[in-house]
Amino acid sequence: MTGVDTGGRSGRRPGNSGTREAILDAARLRFAEVGFDKASIRSIAGAAGVDPALVHHYFGAKAELLTAALDLPIDPQVVIGRIAAAPDDQLGETIVRHVVTIWDSPVGTQAVAAFRSIIGGGGNESMARAFLLEVVLKDIRTRVDSPPGTGDTRVVLAASQMIGLLVARKIVGIEPLASMPPELLARLVGPTLQRYLTGDLGAAGFSPGR
Amino acid sequence: MTGVDTGGRSGRRPGNSGTREAILDAARLRFAEVGFDKASIRSIAGAAGVDPALVHHYFGAKAELLTAALDLPIDPQVVIGRIAAAPDDQLGETIVRHVVTIWDSPVGTQAVAAFRSIIGGGGNESMARAFLLEVVLKDIRTRVDSPPGTGDTRVVLAASQMIGLLVARKIVGIEPLASMPPELLARLVGPTLQRYLTGDLGAAGFSPGR
Repeated sequence: MTGVDTGGRSGRRPGNSGTREAILDAARLRFAEVGFDKASIRSIAGAAGVDPALVHHYFGAKAELLTAALDLPIDPQVVIGRIAAAPDDQLGETIVRHVVTIWDSPVGTQAVAAFRSIIGGGGNESMARAFLLEVVLKDIRTRVDSPPGTGDTRVVLAASQMIGLLVARKIVGIEPLASMPPELLARLVGPTLQRYLTGDLGAAGFSPGR
Repeated sequence: MTGVDTGGRSGRRPGNSGTREAILDAARLRFAEVGFDKASIRSIAGAAGVDPALVHHYFGAKAELLTAALDLPIDPQVVIGRIAAAPDDQLGETIVRHVVTIWDSPVGTQAVAAFRSIIGGGGNESMARAFLLEVVLKDIRTRVDSPPGTGDTRVVLAASQMIGLLVARKIVGIEPLASMPPELLARLVGPTLQRYLTGDLGAAGFSPGR
């Protein structure tokens, strides 16, 4: 059980799809076996019987290969781009609004199921951690790294609130969070993310430079 | 698979332990079958072959029967009592400090495993929800219900942050949260809970009366 093979694909371009799929299968296997950090592009290429340059050609860096291997129903870069466009002082509400809207959408069902599998022990924690840190939180971590060195703590605190909201709203189904409109959730929970990302966190070394 | 029978007990008083255990077994079965809300003391007593009065005599109200059925390694009333003793303006930090300390303790391992089972679909969501709302959050919900009617939202928002912290720290193991000292976590995350429980939530109907 890999917990990451989310089923059939569609809309794939014809032609080199066999090679592409072989690389993705090898990547899923390596990520599951040794974790994201220890799985080298070289070892994945070797398992797929192709040259490492071809892996880079198809997928770019290892983080993009991971995203492709997860076979997500939406491109995380689209959401990341929308969040990147928000002004600093609206980051919190923007993140809650966009992320909750995705969870509530038809494609969100698959994301919730994958998350549930990981938490329940049927998934791959290393892939989940890597996806969160190397894909989802990568750009924003750099943006909120003020004072320098606090970016990691800031984004992971924000992620912890969003994870808890996901569990409460979509998995355990605790009211009134389960059926609250995304806009009200954004107003209630947005300020938490805002403080984590850009605020004075009230602990040594966590006051933003102004 | 009940996901709640956490194994052997010890230190149980001799004498009526057979009857007591029969009631607990019947309660676990009913809670798992029909959920906490629909499981009546009468139906549990019937399944255990005893008079309903005996269930009340042994366990008191249904919430206490649920707590006993969960077979927790610590008495939640002890933690609830410590939190109840905190002044209003220190609720947030006090909750984070006490709850994280329990997660990190040897008995916390069992609580984390039970939570993981529930989230992964191997447990009983209805029992988890009931335990959260009827036992853990009951007293504090009344305390923070200002303006009247906001208590439910306040405590569930606070619970969502603590659930996310549990997942990030104890299940997925995301650094720096995974190995951060409880005292620093209390300073970073405490203000989130404080705002949820007693603050002006910046949305219609959520400003505390002052």
